[in-house]
Amino acid sequence: MSIRYIAFSGGVGGAKLALGLARIVPPDELLIVCNTGDDFDHLGLRICPDLDTVTYTLAGRADRAQGWGLEGETWSCLESLAALGGPSWFRLGDQDLATHLYRTQRLREGAGLGEVTTELCRAFGIASRIVPVSDEPTATMVATPEGELPFQDYFVRHHCAPRVTGLRFAGAEDARIHPQLAAALESPSLQAVIFCPSNPFLSIGPILAIPGLKDSLKTTGKPVIAVSPIIGGQAVKGPAAKIMTELGMPATSLAVAKYYHGVIDALVVDEVDRQALSAIRNLGMACEATATLMMDDDDKVQLARMVVEYVDALAH
Amino acid sequence: MSIRYIAFSGGVGGAKLALGLARIVPPDELLIVCNTGDDFDHLGLRICPDLDTVTYTLAGRADRAQGWGLEGETWSCLESLAALGGPSWFRLGDQDLATHLYRTQRLREGAGLGEVTTELCRAFGIASRIVPVSDEPTATMVATPEGELPFQDYFVRHHCAPRVTGLRFAGAEDARIHPQLAAALESPSLQAVIFCPSNPFLSIGPILAIPGLKDSLKTTGKPVIAVSPIIGGQAVKGPAAKIMTELGMPATSLAVAKYYHGVIDALVVDEVDRQALSAIRNLGMACEATATLMMDDDDKVQLARMVVEYVDALAH
Repeated sequence: MSIRYIAFSGGVGGAKLALGLARIVPPDELLIVCNTGDDFDHLGLRICPDLDTVTYTLAGRADRAQGWGLEGETWSCLESLAALGGPSWFRLGDQDLATHLYRTQRLREGAGLGEVTTELCRAFGIASRIVPVSDEPTATMVATPEGELPFQDYFVRHHCAPRVTGLRFAGAEDARIHPQLAAALESPSLQAVIFCPSNPFLSIGPILAIPGLKDSLKTTGKPVIAVSPIIGGQAVKGPAAKIMTELGMPATSLAVAKYYHGVIDALVVDEVDRQALSAIRNLGMACEATATLMMDDDDKVQLARMVVEYVDALAH
Repeated sequence: MSIRYIAFSGGVGGAKLALGLARIVPPDELLIVCNTGDDFDHLGLRICPDLDTVTYTLAGRADRAQGWGLEGETWSCLESLAALGGPSWFRLGDQDLATHLYRTQRLREGAGLGEVTTELCRAFGIASRIVPVSDEPTATMVATPEGELPFQDYFVRHHCAPRVTGLRFAGAEDARIHPQLAAALESPSLQAVIFCPSNPFLSIGPILAIPGLKDSLKTTGKPVIAVSPIIGGQAVKGPAAKIMTELGMPATSLAVAKYYHGVIDALVVDEVDRQALSAIRNLGMACEATATLMMDDDDKVQLARMVVEYVDALAH
C-alpha cells in the first residue's frame, strides 16, 4: 500500500471532489471510502447509492443533470414495474439495475461488498480504488416526529420533508473498518484524510460511527481535513442545511466546524464564508477559504488541487 | 368455486392451449395450473418461467416469434450486466425484469406465490385464474452423465444438450397442492382435468409429483385428458422428443400414452399420428386425433374447443 490520501465521500457532492482527486492523485496513492449507511434492500436487490454514484462519477458515466444514475439511462423496467403496481418511488434505470443485480448475485455468492466494488470499478474502467467503509451492512435510521424512517424512505420516498430529530446508524456497532481502509490508515505513506463536501450527518456521520474509526484518525498523526458542504448558509444539494436547522444549529460552515470539532484538524470553506475563518480558527483548527462550488470538471480538479496542497502544507 | 376445467400447463406449448381455453371458457370456470419446477433464484430474483409465459400469453403480451418473454422487449439491463461480466445466459428483458422484481419483493413481504400470481394477472388484465401447482418451491433437477444439473442450467445455459438420464423434483415431497387447485379438484362443478401439450417429463411431471395430486385426480371421478406434445415423432418446441429417446422410449404419442397410463383417461393426438389410435385405445384409454399444431390464435381456440367437447362427451 502506498496510499497518500484517503477521501471519505457520500454521494453527489462528495463524488465531485473524489473525481477531482482521482484526476490529480496517482491511482495507487488514493483510497476513496464511501458511506454505506444509505445502502438498502429493495425488490430483492442490494442497492448502495453512494458507492454507485462515486463509481459512475469516476467512470465519467454519471448523469450530469441529476448527479446520480447513469447517463443515457432508459426506464423500461421501472415503467413496467409501476404498471404492475410495484414500488417505483426509487428510480432504478435499466442500466443501473445491472449494477444492483451484479452486486446482489456476488454478495449471495459470498463475496464481500469491497470485493464486489473492486470488480465493478474494474468493469467501469476506474483505476482509483473505491471501498465501502465496511463490508458489514449499516443502515442510517432517521428519527422524525412521526417515528423513525429507514434512510431511503426519508430521503427519496418522502423527499427529505420530515423534520429530523435524530439519527441512528443501525448495525454500525458490529461493523468493522474495511481492511483496505484499516491498512491505509496505518500506512507510513499516508499524508492526510480528506472529508469530501458531503452531508456531515448523513454521509460522513455513518462513516465516523464505525467503531474505532475516530480513534484511528487520531492515531495516524496526519491531518484530517474537511471541505464544508455549506456555502453561504445553503447546501449545494441535499438536506444538509435543513437538517442542521432542525437539529438546532445554524446552517453555517462554523456549525460544520463545531460538529467536526475533535475529529478534523482543518476545514476548507467557501469564499463567501470567509468571514467565518477567524471564528473557526478560534476553535483550534486550521481554516482556509476558496471556491468550493464545483460546476464542471475543472472546478473539481481545482478544488482537489487546493485541498491536496493545503494538507501537504499542514503535514509539514 | 365454479371451476369446470382445470388445465395443467408448462411454458410455450401449454400456454397456447391455455389461451385457447381462456377464449372459450368463462373465466370463473377455468383454472390454469402452472408447473413450478422451472422456477429458480437468479441474480437475487425469483423467476417463474412457466407462470410468466402463461401470463404473458393470456395477456396477449408474449413475444410471438420466440414464444417466451414480452413483445417489444428491450435489453439495456442485460447488455449492461454482460458488460460488467455478470451472467447473461438467462435472457432477462427490461420489462420482464419488472415482473421478477415485483414477485421477489412480494414474496419477501410474505405473500404466497399464488397470491402474487393473482396480483400479476390482475395487473396484466387477465380474467382467467392462473395458479402455481403449489406455493412451496420445487426444483427440477436433471441427471446427466456429467452429473445433476439445475433445470435452467440444463435448459437455457446448456441448450438441452446434455443427455438426460433421469429427473428429480427437489422439494416436491414437502410441497402442498395449491389451495385453489385442491378446492377445484373437489368442486362438484368440475368437468375435466386437461394436460396441455407440454413436456410430460419436464412440465407435467413436476406437477404430478406433488404429493396427493395423482390420487386427487382419481378421486374426482372426472375425465383426465392429455393433449400429446409429440406430433409425428417430434416435439413442436423443446426437448420432449430428445428426452424420450434418451430415457429409452420412442418419441411417439403412444409412448406419451404409456407414460401417462394410469393417470389419464383420454389422449388427444395429432392427425398425423392417427395410426396410433388403436394401440393407444388398447392401453385402455380413449383417444382421438385432431389438428394439434397451434400456429395462430384460431388454431388455439379450435383445439381448445375440440378438447372441451371431447371431455364433455366423455363425462356423460
